[in-house]
This record gives sequence, C-alpha cells and structure tokens, in this order.
Amino acid sequence: VPAHHRRLTTSELVAIELLARALAQPRAKGVVLGIGDDAAVLENGLVWTIDAAVEGVHFDRRWVTLEDIGARAVEAALSDLAAMGATPIAALSALTLPRGIQRREIVALGKGEARAAKRAHTPIVGGNIARGPVLSLTTTVLGRARRPLRRDGARPGDELWLVGKLGLARAGLSFLQKSGKGPRQALRAWQRPHALLDEGRKLVGRASACIDVSDGLAGDAWHLAERSRVRVVIEGDAIVDPMLRAVARALARSPIELALQGGEDYALLATGPRQKRPRFARKIGGIEAGRGVLLELAGKRRVLPRQGFDHLT
Amino acid sequence: VPAHHRRLTTSELVAIELLARALAQPRAKGVVLGIGDDAAVLENGLVWTIDAAVEGVHFDRRWVTLEDIGARAVEAALSDLAAMGATPIAALSALTLPRGIQRREIVALGKGEARAAKRAHTPIVGGNIARGPVLSLTTTVLGRARRPLRRDGARPGDELWLVGKLGLARAGLSFLQKSGKGPRQALRAWQRPHALLDEGRKLVGRASACIDVSDGLAGDAWHLAERSRVRVVIEGDAIVDPMLRAVARALARSPIELALQGGEDYALLATGPRQKRPRFARKIGGIEAGRGVLLELAGKRRVLPRQGFDHLT
Repeated sequence: VPAHHRRLTTSELVAIELLARALAQPRAKGVVLGIGDDAAVLENGLVWTIDAAVEGVHFDRRWVTLEDIGARAVEAALSDLAAMGATPIAALSALTLPRGIQRREIVALGKGEARAAKRAHTPIVGGNIARGPVLSLTTTVLGRARRPLRRDGARPGDELWLVGKLGLARAGLSFLQKSGKGPRQALRAWQRPHALLDEGRKLVGRASACIDVSDGLAGDAWHLAERSRVRVVIEGDAIVDPMLRAVARALARSPIELALQGGEDYALLATGPRQKRPRFARKIGGIEAGRGVLLELAGKRRVLPRQGFDHLT
Repeated sequence: VPAHHRRLTTSELVAIELLARALAQPRAKGVVLGIGDDAAVLENGLVWTIDAAVEGVHFDRRWVTLEDIGARAVEAALSDLAAMGATPIAALSALTLPRGIQRREIVALGKGEARAAKRAHTPIVGGNIARGPVLSLTTTVLGRARRPLRRDGARPGDELWLVGKLGLARAGLSFLQKSGKGPRQALRAWQRPHALLDEGRKLVGRASACIDVSDGLAGDAWHLAERSRVRVVIEGDAIVDPMLRAVARALARSPIELALQGGEDYALLATGPRQKRPRFARKIGGIEAGRGVLLELAGKRRVLPRQGFDHLT
C-alpha cells in the first residue's frame, strides 16, 4: 500500500466538496467554526475533531505493531487539537474489528490507545465496537482553547514557521514498505508520532494561523493558503535538514520531495510576525499577497500542485 | 447479512471487556461518567457518544437507500443522547468510502445525514473522509443534559417503561432480507428510525434509569440490570402490540421473540416510580431486588440469556 493511496482521486475530492456543502449549516447556533479547519470550534472554546485509520489504507500490520497502531490513531486525532492550540479534555474510540482478531490483539490496540491518551493526559471515556472487513480505528477528541488557532488568519508579511520534523516519517514508511529496515529514527517517526500539543498551545498569542501537517507539507500549505486567501512561499533549502538529507540519500529520493509529501510526522505549520516566532519554531518561508503555494529553490519559484486532502475538518 | 451478525462472539465480548479495562481511567479529571453507559458524561453536563454503521454488517444497500443510510447513522448516534435525556449540540461524521463510489452516491449520503441532523436541530460541524474496503459511517454527537439519565439508577419497586416501538424494525429487516416486500410501516421502521430526543428529555426528573434499545430489548435490559444491580422483569404480554402480532404472523415468527431481539427501532427503555410515568411511556414490567432479566409469560418466569453487545458506551 503506497502511502499516496491514502489520497483520494480528483473526482472524489469534488464529491467531498459537494458533501461538505450538503452538510454545511454555517449559521448554526453555538457553532463558531464548522467544516474547513483542523477541528470544529463550538461555544465556550470547545474544539472537536475526528480521525480515522483504516488497515490497508493508512497502515499495514507488517510495518507497525498493534500497540503502535492504537497509539498512532489517537496521536493523529490529538494532532488536530495541537494545530488549534487546544488542550484535550477526553476521547472516544470507535473500533471496527475483522473476524478472527485475537484477544491479545484487541488488548494490544487498547494498550496503545491508552498509552497515547495517557501521554496527553486525555482519558478515553467510551467508544464503540463493530465488526468490519478490516481493522479500523476512528478517534474523536474534544478539547478546549481560549483562542483557537485557525487556518484562516495568515497575513502578507507573516513568516511561515515549522514546528517538528518533515519527511522523516515518510522516509520511514518507504523503508518499511521496501525492506522493513532503515534508520531507527525514520522508522520510529512513522511508527510512533507524537502530537505537538505543548507547542500548539504555546503558539496561541503568537501565530496568526496554524495547521497540522498530516497530508504532506505541500497539501497542507495549500489548505492554509486557500483558507487565509494568501500566497504561501516555501523556501526549499529551509525544509531539508541533515538527517532528512541522509535518509533521502539512502532511499535514492529527493529530500525536498520527501519534505513536501511527508505528512505523518504531525508537524505544525504556522504563520506569524517575525518578532513573535517562538524558539521551537523554524522559519521555512513567508506569506505574500496573492494565491497558491510556491516553492523557492536556488532563486527560482515554481507553483506546487494543489494536493488532495481527506479531511472535512 | 442476518441482523444477528452485528453481534459479536463471546470471545470478542471478553476481549472488549479487556479493552474497556485497558482504556478505563475512572478517576480522570473532568469525567463524570466513562465507559459503560449510552454516552460519556463530562463536566458541565456535556454528553458525548460515537456510533458506527458498516456496510455488510449493519446495512446492505439492497435494503435501504443511501440517503436513508446517512440518516440512520446520525439517528443511531442521536438515540444514545436521547437515552441520556440530552439535547444534541453538534455532530461530526467520519465516512469510509469504497473505491468507485459515485459522486451522486456521496451526495445522497450527505443529504441523508443532513436530513437527520436538521430534524434534531444539530449541525454537522465537520468530519473525516477516508478510503476503505466498504462504506462505513461513524458519527459522534455531543450534547448537554442538566441531569443526564443513566443506566445505573433503577431501584426495586420501579416500573419498567417502554417509549416507542419494539420489534417492528426487526420485522422490517426480515422482510427486506427475504423479499424486499412487506408492510410499509415495518420496512419504514427499519429504514427510517427516529431517535426519541423529545421523549428522552421529558424523562429527566421522572425516570430513575434509561437506555436506548439498540441491540434488542433482551440485551439492553441486561445492560440496565447489570449496571443498576437489580432484576428486570419483562411482562411478555405487554411487549407485543397488535401491529407487531400482525407482522410476526406474516413472517411466521414469534412476536415476543421479535420484540425481545428487535433493537433498531431505537425505542427507550426506562425505569421509574408509577406516579412519575409519563403518558408517552408504557409499563412493560418491573424492577425487583436480585439480578438478571426475566420474562414473565402466562404466569411463568424464565431467565433470558445475556446477549452480546457492541458498545463501549
């Protein structure tokens, strides 16, 4: 299962926009922010998201233990809250279990979910179990943020900030798909991502916009550009660090492509004025008046293609 | 796909109890009620649930339109809130779409979800789209209740109340599985259930305990008995009405068995003192000191077997 299979086709993307329109009730009472961000925002600063991980699409049991599958599912949902600068309150977990799954396997999933939940001080307060053709984990997390970070606040003149790693998890996945062997840090980046909750919270009051990099830097930069109605310029040299360069070489791949396509590190992409950039954020570009996402490399700029996405929030 | 296939096997049930234990954090801050009820209860009266509907397990496209599949998924989640006496605030929808699904099919799902959401004055504020081997809809609903109804409040001496229909949806499903033809009211009961939100709210202050009948009366009565540590006695004559008797005859089935196994009508099963029974609730039995669930028929009592369940909340 190549990672890009998790992306949807163009016709499906169109359908999803139709679906979003069918569901949209923009003026609903008690709704501050609906479809179109990392999470929905309700009254009282409640921030709420849902995320699904499906066997054969998002993961393969050959690449990752069931305990890590459980933890990854929770971390992925938590990452949406991190991008909103929210503190999680609690989670619910809906599992679809294939026929023949063993008790110890279910317990391993639960242990992994509990591990991630504990790390984030977030109790799992319930859920649902259903039978299904493949294993899937759908996690919803509720949190709270005084002033939620949104995708639509970026302004021309802002810097583009990165918090966390880019491309390392994507490299790890490539190693796992090829041979199962590779640098431990890359494998672990994919197998055991951590939502950047502390960093997300610290971006509140500093960042003008934020999104988590779950679908890949290029795609998520597009989300941010479109929601904020600005142009995002990514500095190609800034998104590659020595470790990524090394693993890219081992894979005979372009480190920049890995960084642009890598998403499952669950880094945060934020924007804000230079004087407000926190120490843990790295400048990787800037915001301009205009539209779209550009990659600047060796003094030349090119438009990055708009990527697919698979989130309604 | 016979309806009972949605039930899990005994070994899976054991595993789920292990899973619930792996996830349980009973003293978590901000959690009033965790795993083990229709929904979790958080601080400030927030009531929260998640429910999944999987193609080939919970529904088959030969029996029901995609629009009704969308609506049913939302109604099933709303029914958990009805059982808590809660008013829904908002919903999130996670869809798993099989390869090759058509745009108009996705839009039909969304229209059905929106229809149910509108009926309940509940905006769908976001969600997630993933690819998967079969269509599945996982819906999470957040609501609020001043004093949430729980499963654990039934006391000896209480009456057992039913709100809504029993067995009609189960009969409708049998007709759909056999020939696709049958009494319109039975087919519609399965295809277009409605969560009893108004009735649930009106039970607050009257009922001592409540559960929604989603897995079948027998199974859900067991949940209530176990959580409340009481004995539930069901009066066999009281659970069969003339319409159920007529459809059971057409199916050559026992009306009592249909009533005991029928769940997807999304009726409410509540307990409370006689003088507090609302007009819309029907007495179908009583609560005694003891344990288990008994069926009383023609002056004789027998223990009903403990049924499987597929909910962590």
